[in-house]
Amino acid sequence: MANTGVLTSQAQDFPGWYQDVLAKAELADNGPVRGTMVIRPYGYAIWERMQAELDSRIKAAGVANAYFPLLIPESYLQREAVHVEGFSPELAVVTHGGGKQLEEPVVVRPTSETIIHSFFAKWIQSYRDLPMLLNQWCNVVRWEMRPRLFLRTTEFLWQEGHTAHATESDARQFALHVLHEIYEDFMLNVLAIPVLTGSKTESERFPGAITTWTCEAMMRDGKALQMCTSHELGQNFARAFDITYLSRSGTVEHVWQTSWGAATRLVGALVMAHGDDAGLRLPPKLAPVQIVVLLVRDKDGAGETARNLVAELRDKGLRVELDARTDTSFGRRVVDWELKGVPLRIEVGPRDLKARTVVLCRRDTTTKTSVPLGEVSARVDESLAAAQGALLEEATEFLRRRTVEVDGLADAERAAHDGFAVVRASVLEDGGEAKLNEAGVSVRCLQGPEEGLAPSNDGVNNELVAVVGRAY
Amino acid sequence: MANTGVLTSQAQDFPGWYQDVLAKAELADNGPVRGTMVIRPYGYAIWERMQAELDSRIKAAGVANAYFPLLIPESYLQREAVHVEGFSPELAVVTHGGGKQLEEPVVVRPTSETIIHSFFAKWIQSYRDLPMLLNQWCNVVRWEMRPRLFLRTTEFLWQEGHTAHATESDARQFALHVLHEIYEDFMLNVLAIPVLTGSKTESERFPGAITTWTCEAMMRDGKALQMCTSHELGQNFARAFDITYLSRSGTVEHVWQTSWGAATRLVGALVMAHGDDAGLRLPPKLAPVQIVVLLVRDKDGAGETARNLVAELRDKGLRVELDARTDTSFGRRVVDWELKGVPLRIEVGPRDLKARTVVLCRRDTTTKTSVPLGEVSARVDESLAAAQGALLEEATEFLRRRTVEVDGLADAERAAHDGFAVVRASVLEDGGEAKLNEAGVSVRCLQGPEEGLAPSNDGVNNELVAVVGRAY
Repeated sequence: MANTGVLTSQAQDFPGWYQDVLAKAELADNGPVRGTMVIRPYGYAIWERMQAELDSRIKAAGVANAYFPLLIPESYLQREAVHVEGFSPELAVVTHGGGKQLEEPVVVRPTSETIIHSFFAKWIQSYRDLPMLLNQWCNVVRWEMRPRLFLRTTEFLWQEGHTAHATESDARQFALHVLHEIYEDFMLNVLAIPVLTGSKTESERFPGAITTWTCEAMMRDGKALQMCTSHELGQNFARAFDITYLSRSGTVEHVWQTSWGAATRLVGALVMAHGDDAGLRLPPKLAPVQIVVLLVRDKDGAGETARNLVAELRDKGLRVELDARTDTSFGRRVVDWELKGVPLRIEVGPRDLKARTVVLCRRDTTTKTSVPLGEVSARVDESLAAAQGALLEEATEFLRRRTVEVDGLADAERAAHDGFAVVRASVLEDGGEAKLNEAGVSVRCLQGPEEGLAPSNDGVNNELVAVVGRAY
Repeated sequence: MANTGVLTSQAQDFPGWYQDVLAKAELADNGPVRGTMVIRPYGYAIWERMQAELDSRIKAAGVANAYFPLLIPESYLQREAVHVEGFSPELAVVTHGGGKQLEEPVVVRPTSETIIHSFFAKWIQSYRDLPMLLNQWCNVVRWEMRPRLFLRTTEFLWQEGHTAHATESDARQFALHVLHEIYEDFMLNVLAIPVLTGSKTESERFPGAITTWTCEAMMRDGKALQMCTSHELGQNFARAFDITYLSRSGTVEHVWQTSWGAATRLVGALVMAHGDDAGLRLPPKLAPVQIVVLLVRDKDGAGETARNLVAELRDKGLRVELDARTDTSFGRRVVDWELKGVPLRIEVGPRDLKARTVVLCRRDTTTKTSVPLGEVSARVDESLAAAQGALLEEATEFLRRRTVEVDGLADAERAAHDGFAVVRASVLEDGGEAKLNEAGVSVRCLQGPEEGLAPSNDGVNNELVAVVGRAY
């Protein structure tokens, strides 16, 4: 492409490329308080599209949205021992409010299990109240020592689902339903990012969970990114918050719970899973702008043709923008739209129009095709579908190529420098996992023989494999 | 209605009725930190519908959504003198983060002018960057001494718009565009709540604004509720944050700004503007559930008929729920749906089905009509449109009846006990406004002769009238 040199190249400096593309595609900026982030309109439009896609899947699973307070009494967090130990070092604490020192300090939520469960205890009385399935879209704060835009920020936006069930099996099934039907489906079919699913080792588990399920993706530098998690909480919080129900048979039982979340980190994942040296490459199903109609020169009716085309494509329900900034150079505008990763560009210029054609340019492949005006509508549909498929295929092929099966710890560590290593989980025993961690490699997930899922949560056994890699 | 006695009556104790209906319709609960609120699924569904309607109007006005950090350095607020003075007593202050005392305390945003304007200063360089039109949906915290669910809460959800323009006139026009085309249109045509628009007196202005425009509505107890505000900020913040642009003629100029917001308080307004002694009455355009199909008894094919009806109405794009809880008494279910204010109830029972009819019940009028099955779809459209119109008409008539023109301060104070008093604005001079305030009455807005808008912002003049009332 003509725009080589606009960005630091990925091969040369991947983290530098990432910073560069966030700035030049105007996705985000650092906030004044260390680790905080400003999400600029284009970055936020990507997040809004993610929200819409996730939200419809969450609602289809029977989950209702609600909203719980940002501020939580410090004492709430202390009720579940493992939970408070996990989160204490990351808390932001409000000590003053309304001009006075507070009697009890309150924390800015790092996650909402504690406050939501205190209401579950009020609202759940009988088996008729179960399952209780809630979700909230909100901001959370976890003080971040090594911040990185979208990937690790002191404040981030997310959805957090919280559910209560009558039995352990109901809770497990729901946690897995969320993992596959909400998250994996969204990542595969909208983000066009293949993921490995599995469970976390004990050391990587959510504080307070009995099992943490995860979707792990591979970025274009071969490193792993945890895309979301879905936790089985067992009865740990039910006991800490005394959430009980009267069963059908008249006994009083503690509920079984889950929680699960996906965050603005996914915007970073999208950038690093598909982006190239010219900028973002957005999958059409996710892209806030799917097509830009670029008016080359406003001459000989080109302006009217471009505007009509925009109207026609919008009528089909596509997200289309017109670029009529003919006072800015053609080359610069092309570079801009490539930076922003818009999947399809239609160039409308007086020269092509003499032959009643326009030029279709796919961002993912950078192929250009001359298309008769009357065929644009049909060709656009084909091109968008093809681009969606091609991005997934490319990412899937990349993941396959960079994932190797190895035999022992030393080979796993070596292989993890380029991608993922799959190794028998038994090598993690007797300090094996700690040894990997010391080398900057971590267990991304454990997978059982069936569908990549651990068959039980009794810990590591011979049937399990561990996927290891370097992680963001 | 049969359900008299479910709620405290409005006539007897309006605040008690309000608390009662929020609890029994399951809209909200108090949070553990004083003044905070849990928005339950039904309350949140109402807010989501408000967000969708406002958001589409905001985007139609050319405004893009973005997101700015929750945490703001204390020093940012101090840059605009009037602003910090107005907000200091309400701030929540974070003094500890990541296990350590912070070098500079940070505040939880009470509103985001300061942090957003610090980025405007970076992003705005030339007249080509103007107008800059941004909005964010977020939570804010203002420590509340006299909290009341939805109306005054320590944390609330809102949208806050922030814009920068090249000229004073552009900024004013935009502030008024927001007031009328975004807010007033939404309130009138979706919420079915008539509002009075006008400007605030100096003492009621937003801290840092040169003019604050407002929509004021009347609740069913005759009290006023401020529904939203739209501020002209002049160049106050532009000077404090040094937001300048290079003009077309090459001079460096400060921008002119606006900010505007509407909050979860609107849920409270909706409850108090339309509710009656049986519960909420939601206007169909806003209602999360527009129609409930209530299966009376699952016998003689009634269940199948009900399910088919739900599918048919959903296919038309209506928001429909099926109530098939035939193990709960019919009466109790009717009370529930009336509490929740669902505009239309369709009762499907074996007895009516013998004559191939169902019963349509309008929540607003409580009228019941027997309708042949084949006519349901058409009658539903009519009934929803009629209910939307009737609620607006009733509220408009109520506002008209309770608004009186009076001559002097004493009469204004008296009249404000039942509703609004309209009085020449000149009576506010020389301590007149303070006298009203001492009597618990405040100036809700100033209106000029044209379309209820103050013609200039030079303060009070003889052409202006003041609308006074008791306020939430």
